[in-house]
Order: sequence, then structure tokens, then C-alpha cells
Amino acid sequence: MKPVNLIEYEPLAQARVEADAWDYYQGGSDDEVTLRANRSAFERIRLRPRVLIDASKIDTRTTVLGAPISMPIMIAPMACHVFAHPEAECATARAAGQEETLMAVSTVANRTIEEIAEVAGGPLWFQLYTNENPRVSERLVQRADAAGYRAVILTVDTPRLGRRERDIRNQFKLEARSLLANFQEAVADEPTFSRHVTDTWETVDWLRTVTKLPLLLKGILTAEDALLAVERGVEGIIVSNHGGRQLDGSLAAIEALPEIAEAVAGRCEIYLDGGVRRGTDVLKALALGARAIFIGRPILWGLAVDGQEGARHILQLLRNELEVAMGLSGCPTLAGINRSLVKIL
Amino acid sequence: MKPVNLIEYEPLAQARVEADAWDYYQGGSDDEVTLRANRSAFERIRLRPRVLIDASKIDTRTTVLGAPISMPIMIAPMACHVFAHPEAECATARAAGQEETLMAVSTVANRTIEEIAEVAGGPLWFQLYTNENPRVSERLVQRADAAGYRAVILTVDTPRLGRRERDIRNQFKLEARSLLANFQEAVADEPTFSRHVTDTWETVDWLRTVTKLPLLLKGILTAEDALLAVERGVEGIIVSNHGGRQLDGSLAAIEALPEIAEAVAGRCEIYLDGGVRRGTDVLKALALGARAIFIGRPILWGLAVDGQEGARHILQLLRNELEVAMGLSGCPTLAGINRSLVKIL
Amino acid sequence: MKPVNLIEYEPLAQARVEADAWDYYQGGSDDEVTLRANRSAFERIRLRPRVLIDASKIDTRTTVLGAPISMPIMIAPMACHVFAHPEAECATARAAGQEETLMAVSTVANRTIEEIAEVAGGPLWFQLYTNENPRVSERLVQRADAAGYRAVILTVDTPRLGRRERDIRNQFKLEARSLLANFQEAVADEPTFSRHVTDTWETVDWLRTVTKLPLLLKGILTAEDALLAVERGVEGIIVSNHGGRQLDGSLAAIEALPEIAEAVAGRCEIYLDGGVRRGTDVLKALALGARAIFIGRPILWGLAVDGQEGARHILQLLRNELEVAMGLSGCPTLAGINRSLVKIL
Amino acid sequence: MKPVNLIEYEPLAQARVEADAWDYYQGGSDDEVTLRANRSAFERIRLRPRVLIDASKIDTRTTVLGAPISMPIMIAPMACHVFAHPEAECATARAAGQEETLMAVSTVANRTIEEIAEVAGGPLWFQLYTNENPRVSERLVQRADAAGYRAVILTVDTPRLGRRERDIRNQFKLEARSLLANFQEAVADEPTFSRHVTDTWETVDWLRTVTKLPLLLKGILTAEDALLAVERGVEGIIVSNHGGRQLDGSLAAIEALPEIAEAVAGRCEIYLDGGVRRGTDVLKALALGARAIFIGRPILWGLAVDGQEGARHILQLLRNELEVAMGLSGCPTLAGINRSLVKIL
Repeated sequence: MKPVNLIEYEPLAQARVEADAWDYYQGGSDDEVTLRANRSAFERIRLRPRVLIDASKIDTRTTVLGAPISMPIMIAPMACHVFAHPEAECATARAAGQEETLMAVSTVANRTIEEIAEVAGGPLWFQLYTNENPRVSERLVQRADAAGYRAVILTVDTPRLGRRERDIRNQFKLEARSLLANFQEAVADEPTFSRHVTDTWETVDWLRTVTKLPLLLKGILTAEDALLAVERGVEGIIVSNHGGRQLDGSLAAIEALPEIAEAVAGRCEIYLDGGVRRGTDVLKALALGARAIFIGRPILWGLAVDGQEGARHILQLLRNELEVAMGLSGCPTLAGINRSLVKIL
Repeated sequence: MKPVNLIEYEPLAQARVEADAWDYYQGGSDDEVTLRANRSAFERIRLRPRVLIDASKIDTRTTVLGAPISMPIMIAPMACHVFAHPEAECATARAAGQEETLMAVSTVANRTIEEIAEVAGGPLWFQLYTNENPRVSERLVQRADAAGYRAVILTVDTPRLGRRERDIRNQFKLEARSLLANFQEAVADEPTFSRHVTDTWETVDWLRTVTKLPLLLKGILTAEDALLAVERGVEGIIVSNHGGRQLDGSLAAIEALPEIAEAVAGRCEIYLDGGVRRGTDVLKALALGARAIFIGRPILWGLAVDGQEGARHILQLLRNELEVAMGLSGCPTLAGINRSLVKIL
Repeated sequence: MKPVNLIEYEPLAQARVEADAWDYYQGGSDDEVTLRANRSAFERIRLRPRVLIDASKIDTRTTVLGAPISMPIMIAPMACHVFAHPEAECATARAAGQEETLMAVSTVANRTIEEIAEVAGGPLWFQLYTNENPRVSERLVQRADAAGYRAVILTVDTPRLGRRERDIRNQFKLEARSLLANFQEAVADEPTFSRHVTDTWETVDWLRTVTKLPLLLKGILTAEDALLAVERGVEGIIVSNHGGRQLDGSLAAIEALPEIAEAVAGRCEIYLDGGVRRGTDVLKALALGARAIFIGRPILWGLAVDGQEGARHILQLLRNELEVAMGLSGCPTLAGINRSLVKIL
Repeated sequence: MKPVNLIEYEPLAQARVEADAWDYYQGGSDDEVTLRANRSAFERIRLRPRVLIDASKIDTRTTVLGAPISMPIMIAPMACHVFAHPEAECATARAAGQEETLMAVSTVANRTIEEIAEVAGGPLWFQLYTNENPRVSERLVQRADAAGYRAVILTVDTPRLGRRERDIRNQFKLEARSLLANFQEAVADEPTFSRHVTDTWETVDWLRTVTKLPLLLKGILTAEDALLAVERGVEGIIVSNHGGRQLDGSLAAIEALPEIAEAVAGRCEIYLDGGVRRGTDVLKALALGARAIFIGRPILWGLAVDGQEGARHILQLLRNELEVAMGLSGCPTLAGINRSLVKIL
């Protein structure tokens, strides 16, 4: 029997992924406190469903930066889908397209920006890790623009790599373990992915000079930084702690969301990334101010179990759960979801 | 030795009920967070007993919508008692009658409205799931009225079925698994139970045109909806999350009760349904504003273990526990129970 | 090696006491929620020790209702010490005397009021369960007075027995299981212990007409009742939930203490009974307003393990722990202990 | 493979240390509630990392009482390093020197004040347990001064020893188990370490007359005592509960820090000692007002596993974790760390 929820995919996927890659996918930093908090924080939020509202027709459609998607559930940027399936990001992109939603493509994908764009049926955003050589970053962004990506996501929570102890013990190196496709082009002077970044708010300004694509910042966890982002005019903020893989002990994503939503007050779009496993989690995130959420590891679980179809099934399951949750909470449209839908214990 | 409390009935019942039906009875939706919360929320409420009050004579009698019952403990509407015992709802109704309390009869019972009425010794309320064909609903209500039921309970938390994963895995279908007695009559055009409902507040108004019976709404969890219900003039509100079977993550019933009691401020009767297993739970619910409570699954446990006598024993045990709790808290009558009896941690 | 703390006595005692009597000693009512809360509530209280105060000489002496005792630790009234040791209450009373503290003697002791008084070296208080025949109660109180008891404790939390399910399952009956010594005298008309009591505040007034002994109420858990007690002029209040044996779900004793101490504001003495196992627990209770505490079950553990010497060792261990705790918190005398010593989490 | 964090050293060390000495190192008092709270309290503090700050160059350097150290991580005073390694405190001191940080040397070291000073590469502070004979205390302090120690730490939380039950069961006596080096000199009249102390605030004044070294108080847990310390003009406060070894149930060190930092308001330096195991713990302590932290037991673990190199590795691991944490939280210098970096749940 097919899994009936996202969580059931986890052990099935583990049986199919090599141990060190599985640790890389699943692990968090240090004691994995934040990794666990991303989930447990949802349990301290109660839903306050409303009744006797005609919810026979559920409409999950929305737009993100103007791009229509069929539901407020998008695929988070994640490195190296190839550990899950040989078709890697191309399979994931096709799944996203089938479900008419957006995929964010990682700088460190195993397929090139262009290969993914070619097979994607839905909108794409490009996630950027900057390079110490700005020309490398510029080139990546311009390739994304040329390939039809709709926005650039600058990851701001990774000035250095978090202490992922599973990877340290496994001596796991992403670059050595698989082909980082976007760094294989025959550009003599800067072919290599580099981790050494010194991004500042000036990087944001510089990015504006390189591309006209909308700009999102991923990894903001405080109202203070959200306000700075709004002042810089970014189009979107992704509230995220990098799946618990960077600073251990930092706020759970859903814990940080309320103060950010209040500070931003509608001046840019806000998305949540971190710990979503259930349709009711999506509902909670939307109630607390997210326009849409990103789903990460479960997509890789689906991909590992059944390739494109598995990734697609993950999206289908979560969509179905969201529809049920919207129906049962008296919110047939996303517009009806607001802060009064939740009570934080 | 006979069980000394409700909880001891649970494993005894499990041994007597078929596995898929047991899952149907016991299960909640999704991760069963709300199912568990219905119980655990009671543990965060402390009792503040008063002393040196003559409680040698305990009086548990009360009325619900004017109907006298011997105690503020009623039988919740539940589908398909036949999985527990061949005499099904008729056994339950006789047990309720013996203990002089009220039974709420489900639309999806295994015995007809009329059959149950015939054997019931206590007052009955009819729980309505509306049908996409309003004539079916109308007919059910009118049959209930004709059979002497005292009120109609409109379930408002089930615009669609919750995601009960045990049932999904078991491929459990209520309609296929047993006879839904109220849908067997020889009416050519609408013989079938349908899940597809689009109830709104207009449904409430429409029901008023169909019957003069008092009307209760079951499944309200917010002060906002309680106020709307009061404005519509309903006679009663049943605070319930459908035993944790509909929207997972929603408030525990006892968590929702205080805000509803405060909002309603006595303008209609309020009952609690969800998680009651002890006489002290009844006391806590009454202190927080309920006029009476409904007991659900334990009745089916008693029924499974010993038919009518088992269901009756459940009621007797809970009555006895309530009497002891009233005696030990200095509340010989229900009128003496108020908010100062509890402290929420 | 001798046990180093009270807790280590528990398994040793269990091995020496018959199973049904052990259950009677150890058990609480219903789900034993309050029994556990009596302990766990202490863990939510943090100590705020003060430093650089000369605490080389610790003075634990105090008085209770004017009677000097060597430490603010007294023996709670408990039924039937004979299950622990054949010398029963006489052994306990000698142990209390050796440690120069007070013992409260239960109505349902296995030795008579007079026998215990004969061997006791310290002050005694008499705990009274009233009888449906007031002459029986009167006779008990007058015997206590004649035998030199210093006060009467009226237990007010037992208008009926709590639902102790261990005893129900064991079909345990105190009266049948051992000799209730105080009800063996050759008074033709009222020789029997009765449970049927209807105590009210009038009982308190009536007791005043029967004896000039100071009067304490045991089993108060609310500020409201503490105020009523003060108005009636009682000399002392024992904050207690009867060791978790009466109303399950009621406040832990230490949880109830602050509101009672605030309400009483010094107008009578307050003692705590419930869950004390450590010297730091005594300190917390005193900081929150108790003048002294009662220790219950551990005395029976000591008695079971080593008779009089075991009970005495329990007192010695707890005294030693209290002295260490006073020394380490900068409170060489009891007078220095106040509310600022604790922080409730 | 070498351990990747401090925690991994714990079982390795246990295999190398004799059982009774291990219990001495690891144990806390009574139920070890405070021992555990020292760790668990950190988990209730969330980090609020800031982004887009150039943190490519991390500077962990600071000063403590004017002495430069390479990082805000110092070695806590601990008795008898010899149980971990035969080179005892000399190995530890060399490790501290290699990592350019400070070591606090215990009165009850296994190497003399002078031996340790001879090999130490970094600054030293001398921790003083006073003696009932003030001349012994005076002599110790003057030896420390002569040997180049930079300050005296007066431990104020040990007017008597905490009830460490592991040691009671093991009949463990520090003096009998190893050589307390500082008490071996041929001074006829006071050669013996004594536990009997009666320190008061006058002891602080007296110490001033004995030495011109800066003075710190170790073991303060309340704002009240911190204010008294400031009034006495102490140069520093070490917030500590003695590793959970003195008054069980007292505040966790990190729980006490905020009220102390607020009360002191910069008038002396504040350090935290207790429960630090992670670089993020250091960050939390600094955010809540500590200038630097002390690390205790893990140093002994490192020492047990690999002598000087092991102790040094502990410091290196924690330094590296701190650098990563500073980088990931947008705090390249210690000056940038403040209260807004944390949220206490």
C-alpha cells in the first residue's frame, strides 16, 4: 500500500539512500535541538476551526511574487537530489510541474540551471550561494535569468557551514560525493564552488545591479533583520533556520514567524521553511503570516522511494491534507486564513 | 472482578471488537494530537476542593433543555454501535434509560430512529448529518420528532471527513461495513447516506422551518462561533472536536470550553464532549461552564464487554465517581459548582 | 549500608510489608495524579540561596502552638502503623520523642490514645475523624486531653473515603484488617468506628464546647477556606490533600500553600503535609509560609525496615538534610527563611 | 577518530577514571536536580541570529580583569585533577597556556600553587577555600600572589559540603584519596585542609587586608548578593551553583545570570560557571550578561582521555564551536553580543 502521509515515506527512503548521504539529508547541526524544535513547535500551536462556512469548494491557488501556483506549498532549495534518485533535480522539477507549483533550485544541484529549466513545468526560483569571486555569482544569476527563473533567493544564514556532526563523523564532503553541475562549465578562471562568503547588506545591493529578477532573502529569523530587508526593498523573505542545519539552538522557523510577520506588515511576501509535515502545519504557518511554505526533506524521501512519482505523491498528499484542513477549519480560500485561526499555547 | 473504572474497560473491549472496527472507534485524525490532547488537557486543570460543607446527600440531578436527567452525564452520538454488540443502539438506549439519562442517537446508527425510541427509557436527542438532498434531512428530523426525540443536534464540524489514517490503512468504509438503519426505508428517491454536505448558518435557519424541536450545534470550538450560534437562537452548544477525529491540532474540548462559556454568558446551554473518563473530569467541565457532559468511546467499551449491562456499568461507575468527587469537593449539588473550583495551570 | 536518604527506604520497606497493606499505605485515589503532583510540584520551585552569612551554627528549633520541638518536621497522622511493625504507633511515638519532635496520632491507630501517650517523649496531637454519634467523638477528644495531648486536629477532607482503586481491587478494609484500638473500650452503646460523617463549620464550633484544646483543621487547600478557618478562630491549618488519597486532581499541597499563607497573613499557624522527601522540600515549604511540615509515608517505611530505630533514622536523615540546606542557603535559623528564598518556575 | 564534541569525551573518560573518583567528578548533591537543570536550562533559551553581517573574521579575544585571553572560555577551579591524569593540574595549566586562556586553580589541587605557576602559559587565578585558621588562608593567598596569580576567587557557596550521595555511598574522602599539595608544607601549626569555614562579608573585607590582588566571589545566585558584592567593591562575580554539588534545587547558573547582570549593571565583571557544553551555550551566557564562562568537568574528561592534549582539545573544540556560533549569529566580535540575541522560552 502506498504511504498515507509524508512521515511514512521516511523509513522507506532511508532504506534506499546510502548511509552517509542519508545523514547529510537528515542531519542538523550540533545536538540537533533546532532540527527537533522545527517540528515540536508546531505542536504548541492549536487550531481554532470555524464552522458552518460553505467549504465544499476548496481553492488552494495563490501567487508568489505574481506567479500563479496551485497551492501554497513549494519545493525548498536543497542540494544534490542525486543521492535520492539518478534523475536528481530534473525528476523533482517535473513533479513540481505536474502539481503546478514552484521549485527552488539550489546552487549546488546535480543538474544545471538550464537542464532543470528545460523539464520544469512550473515556475522556478534560483537559490544562490555567493562565491568569493563575484563574477561566479553574477554568472549563475544571469544563467538563471536567461533560463527563465522568476526570482533569486539569496541564502543569508550560511556565512559558514553549520557544525553537522553526522557529516563530520562521516567525513562527508558534498563536492567530493557528487557532481555539482553548475560548476562544470569550461570557464577557465572560476570553475569551483566555494564556501567562503562574506555576504553583507551590500551584497543585496550588488545583486540588484546584476539582475532585474525579484530578490528574496532566505534564513531570516528576527524582526530586526526582516525590517532591514524591507528597507532594502527585497521582494520576499523566507523564514528559515536552514532545516536546523546551521546555528543550533536558534528559533524554530514557526516560532520566528509571528514577530517577522508583524514587523513586515505586508510590505513584502513572507514564506516559511522548516518542519512542515502536515496540511495542518501549512494552515498554521499561513495563519501566522506566511504566504506559502516550502517543503524540504520529504520531497527527497519521495524522490528516493519512487523518483518523480514519489516526489509528486508527496506534493499530492500534502495538498490533499491542506484541502481537508481548510475545509475542516472553515477556510475554503487562503484569503480567509488569519491569526485568529490559531492559539499559541 | 468487574472493572473498577472506565479505563479498565478499554483492553477488555479491544479483545471483543474486530480490529478494523476497533480502529474506527478508537482512532483520531492525522497524528492524533487532538485525540491525546482531549485527555491531557484535563491534567493541567487542578481542583480546589472546599471543606466542611455537608455533602452527605449528593444530588446529581439536572435538566437539559428542560428534560430531567439523573446526572449531568449523557451518551454522545456515535456511529454504529453494532461493532460493539449485536443489540447495538437498542442496548445502549436501554442502559441510558436504566440510569435515567439521555442518549444522543447518531444519524448513522444501526437501528432506526423508531426502534431506538421504542426501547429507550430516558430522553433522546437526534444527531443529524445533513444530506445533499434536503428532503432526506427533513425526513430524518421529522421521524425523530414523531418518535419522541426531544431535540436535534446538528453536527457542524464535519463538512468533510477527517483524515483518519487507521481507517485509510484499513480501507474501512462505514456504509460497507454495517447497515445504516435509517437509510433502509423504501423511499425510492433518497435512500442513501451521503457525506457531501455544505451546511452553513442558513442550514440552521432552514432546520427551524422543518421542525419545532430545540436545536443544538455540535462541534463548536471558538467564542466567535458560539456567539453566532447564540445570535441564531440555538438552544444548546456542544463543545467538541468530534473526539479528535476531524481537524487534528484543534483545541482540546476542555481547552475551548472557558472562552465559549464566557462568550455565551448563559444565553444557551453548553455541553462538553471529549476526553471525559473520570468523575473529576465531569466536575472540571461543569466548573468551566458546561451544564452536562457527553461520554463517548467508554460506552462502546462497556457495550462490547457486556452489552446493555456493560454500557450501564460505565454510566454507574462514572456517576459514582462524580458523586464521590462532588462530595470531596464540597459541592453536594450541581448548582454549587463554579469557576472557583478549578485552577488552570 | 544504611540508607542515605528517605527514598532508599521505600523498596526496603516494600519487601517487609504485606502487599495489600503496602498498597493501602502507598496508594492514592483514582489515577494518582495528585499523589504524583505532591512530589513533582516541588521540582518546579527553585531555591535562591544567599551567601556569606555565618551558618556554622544551625538552629532548627521551633515551636508549634507553643510547644517546643527540635525541628520543623513532625509526624503526620496515619492509620494503622501495625502493618509496618508490631509495636505500631508506640514505636513511632518513641522515635518522635528521641528526636524531640511532635507526633500526630490518628483516630484509627492500632494502639490506644493512652498507650501512645505513655511512651511518647515528645508532644502529641490527636487527629480526629468524627463519628456519626457525637458522644463517640467527644469521648475520643476527652481521652486525648486527659492523656496530655496538646491539640486536636480535625480532618476536614474526608466527608467520605476517596476512591483508592488499589484498595478496591484488594477488597481492603481497614477495620477488618487490624485492630482499631480506640474503638475497643467496653462502652456498650458506641464501640464502632464509623465513616459516615457530616462535618460542617458547626462541627468546629461544637468541638470548642467539648474541649479547651487548641484546634487545627487538616485538609484545607484554598484561601477561601483558610479565611473561614481564621474567622472561626482555629489555632492552626494543615495544608494537605490527604497524601493524594482523597480528591484526585486537587492541588498539590505545596501548590496550595502560597495562596493560603497570603490569606492567613499570620493569624494562625500553617503547616504543610504532602510530598516532603528532602530537606530542601522542608526549606521550600517554610519559605512559602509553613511553620513546619508533616512527614508521612517515609515514617512508615522506616518503621517497617527497623521499627523505632528506622522511624527515628528517617527523622534524623531529614533533620540532617534540613540543616545542610539551611546552611547552604544562608539561613542558620528558621526565622531567616522567607518568600525570597524561592522562585516558582 | 577523535571526539567531535565535548560530550563524546564523557564515556571515554569514564573508562579511564576509577569509579569512586568518577562519581566524585560527575556527581551532584541529593537528587541531582540542579546538576541536570544546569544543562536543561540552556535548552529553554533560543538564539536569534542576525544575518548579512561580515563575520568572515571572528575575534574571540577578550580580557578578564585586564588580563588578555584568546577566548571567553576559562578553566573552572576543580579539585584533584590527579584522578584524571598523573600530571594533574600541571597538564591542565599547560593546556590552558597553549590555548592562551586562563585557568583557575583550586585550593585543593594535587600540585602546589607554585608548581602550577611554573608551567602555566596563561594567566592564573587562585580559588580559595578559607581555613578555620586565618593564617592558613593568608599564607595560601600570599603564595598565589608571589607565584604570579592575577586574582583570588573566594568560593562563597560552600560553608559546608553539599550532600553528594554518590560520595557518601562510596565513603569517598578527598583528603584520604589523594595528596592535597598545598597542605604539605612543613608549617608546624596549620598543615591541614579544613572544611570548617564561617565566611561572611567580613571575610571579604579581611581578604582585602591580606592581599592587593583583585577579588572575585564564586557561587552567587541572586541579585541581592550580587548587589552586596558590588557594594563591597569586588572585581568580579562568578555565577555558579558549584556544578550542582551544593544546594540541590537551587537555580541553574544560566537561570540566575539575567537578574544578576541586571542588578550589577556593569559595575563589576560577571562570569558564568555551570553546564556549558557547547559553543552556543557560551554565546547564550554572553548574551545574558557574562563576560566569559568557565568550563569544568569536560576539562577533566579531556585530561583523563589524553592528558594535556586532551584538555587542550576540549578547549579547541569549544573555541571552534564558539567561532562557528559567532559567525552564524552575526557576531564577529564579542562586543556585538547582547541580550537581543536570545529569547527565553
